Amino acid sequence: MEIALVGIGKIAVDQHVPAIAASDEWSLAATVSRQGAVEGVTGYTNFDQMLAERPDIRVVSLCVPPGPRFDYAVAALRAGRHVMLEKPPGATLAECYQLEALARENRVALFATWHSREAAGVAQAKEWLIGKRLRRLSVTWREDVHRWHPGQAWIWEPAGMGVFDPGINALSIVTEILPDPIHLTSADLDIPSNCQTPIGARLNFYHPHGAEVTADFDWRQTGDQIWTIDVETDQGTLSLLNGGATVVIDGQQIDMAGTNTLSGEYPRLYRRMAELVRQGGVDVDLSPMIHVTDALALGRRTVVDPFFD
Amino acid sequence: MEIALVGIGKIAVDQHVPAIAASDEWSLAATVSRQGAVEGVTGYTNFDQMLAERPDIRVVSLCVPPGPRFDYAVAALRAGRHVMLEKPPGATLAECYQLEALARENRVALFATWHSREAAGVAQAKEWLIGKRLRRLSVTWREDVHRWHPGQAWIWEPAGMGVFDPGINALSIVTEILPDPIHLTSADLDIPSNCQTPIGARLNFYHPHGAEVTADFDWRQTGDQIWTIDVETDQGTLSLLNGGATVVIDGQQIDMAGTNTLSGEYPRLYRRMAELVRQGGVDVDLSPMIHVTDALALGRRTVVDPFFD
Repeated sequence: MEIALVGIGKIAVDQHVPAIAASDEWSLAATVSRQGAVEGVTGYTNFDQMLAERPDIRVVSLCVPPGPRFDYAVAALRAGRHVMLEKPPGATLAECYQLEALARENRVALFATWHSREAAGVAQAKEWLIGKRLRRLSVTWREDVHRWHPGQAWIWEPAGMGVFDPGINALSIVTEILPDPIHLTSADLDIPSNCQTPIGARLNFYHPHGAEVTADFDWRQTGDQIWTIDVETDQGTLSLLNGGATVVIDGQQIDMAGTNTLSGEYPRLYRRMAELVRQGGVDVDLSPMIHVTDALALGRRTVVDPFFD
Repeated sequence: MEIALVGIGKIAVDQHVPAIAASDEWSLAATVSRQGAVEGVTGYTNFDQMLAERPDIRVVSLCVPPGPRFDYAVAALRAGRHVMLEKPPGATLAECYQLEALARENRVALFATWHSREAAGVAQAKEWLIGKRLRRLSVTWREDVHRWHPGQAWIWEPAGMGVFDPGINALSIVTEILPDPIHLTSADLDIPSNCQTPIGARLNFYHPHGAEVTADFDWRQTGDQIWTIDVETDQGTLSLLNGGATVVIDGQQIDMAGTNTLSGEYPRLYRRMAELVRQGGVDVDLSPMIHVTDALALGRRTVVDPFFD
């Protein structure tokens, strides 16, 4: 299947282009980008022109930032194209619901991707949790913003989400593996005095069986970088380490070799997109974004030291 | 039908109790409140006790603040009772989705009320807009917080919503009368230096046909109090004044006498609840709350003068 990739920035070059190249289901037929390009692939700067000139390209993958993404998605869906969205699926929740409705109206596939859900250990953690009684789940997502997001001024602007940009990845895993729904009860947000979004956030969630569910997101971590989810149940403990890539059950690291027929988060996303296109399916789970929006809306804000890139 | 009223505060005494008393469909069988009571009606202080002792009361109306409301609603739904919720239906969006799922699971009625949608002119405004092309819609909701919310410290705390507490009423009307979905594109929030929630907010919305949709909410209004929605279309103008009670079309005030068989917002809410109980229906439209949550999450915050009650 031919696909067009829109927004040739870091995430497209690092993840999307190699995943498409390695796939035997997909062929990169065009790119749309103001500055970026992929060697050997027809490049457009105008999205509407690409849609008009290339009716043969039935699928569009959007890697532009959440701000402008809505207009691209609407144009593609109205033009009858199947659409794949980088995370988060939009800047506002309201627009995401509109995209979902528009996809159903136009009978095309729409996939709001959460790449961390495809990390090697997530499926196994989800399966392990079935039938166990949760006592505690704690997320620790602590990284150095200077190292991972240099020069990205937009993360500090209102729609940029701040530390929830990585934090939403953790919440996409939590909402995938937990059998029961949770909701925010309180949040504390640390906002640098010269920014609009948090550099640190501590979240508490309600769990229907009374388990203690918390998340600690921080961008001020120096030294070891931590992307861990620790789970305690009535029948043992499980930890997801390295953003979901590694599983430790009752202290024993599990060998993940051979558990997935396809290796890598993005290759698995593109395989799922191929399934959705064949079925005309809509896969839009907004729960990670609902929790982040609830936390940004309801969090108690404390002003902290200014941030300098 | 017998009904129990939970949370006997100002809104219950001013609106719910008289609406139930005036109805020939409802009978107030019990109240649950720590301090409040209604003369001649059995009063409970413990909600679980009321549920256990009064299986004959099949319907519960919750007027407690959004913070503790979730636990009451869960207890009532799990006990097989039909539930009516004051606005907003919860503190977080995630919990509202859970209540909706729980009502469907337990096959009982759930009504997330928006009383302003029952204002006398709203149905007429909605009908008038059908088939017209919207050019502009502007909300002006400016009131004096000292006059309408004296001593309500909770409105300045994270879940209290600040000026969106009245503002969500305007958005409940806008989302009711507009035929097309909108979503927030930007918001500016004025936050008093000693508070967590806004005293003023200016919102801009995307409209699918390019109409200019804005809202101006302010709690610092002295003198005339304004609750107006002005609409401009290709076929004339309409204004909803006094919070939706009055309709002016092309400069002419419309006589609303006789357009509604039942007078008053709350009597109409209770009539609708009676219908839902008979049908086992779920009426939960979260769109007003989605817009407020989006605005609180994405709004650009500016610190303004401290607020003193």
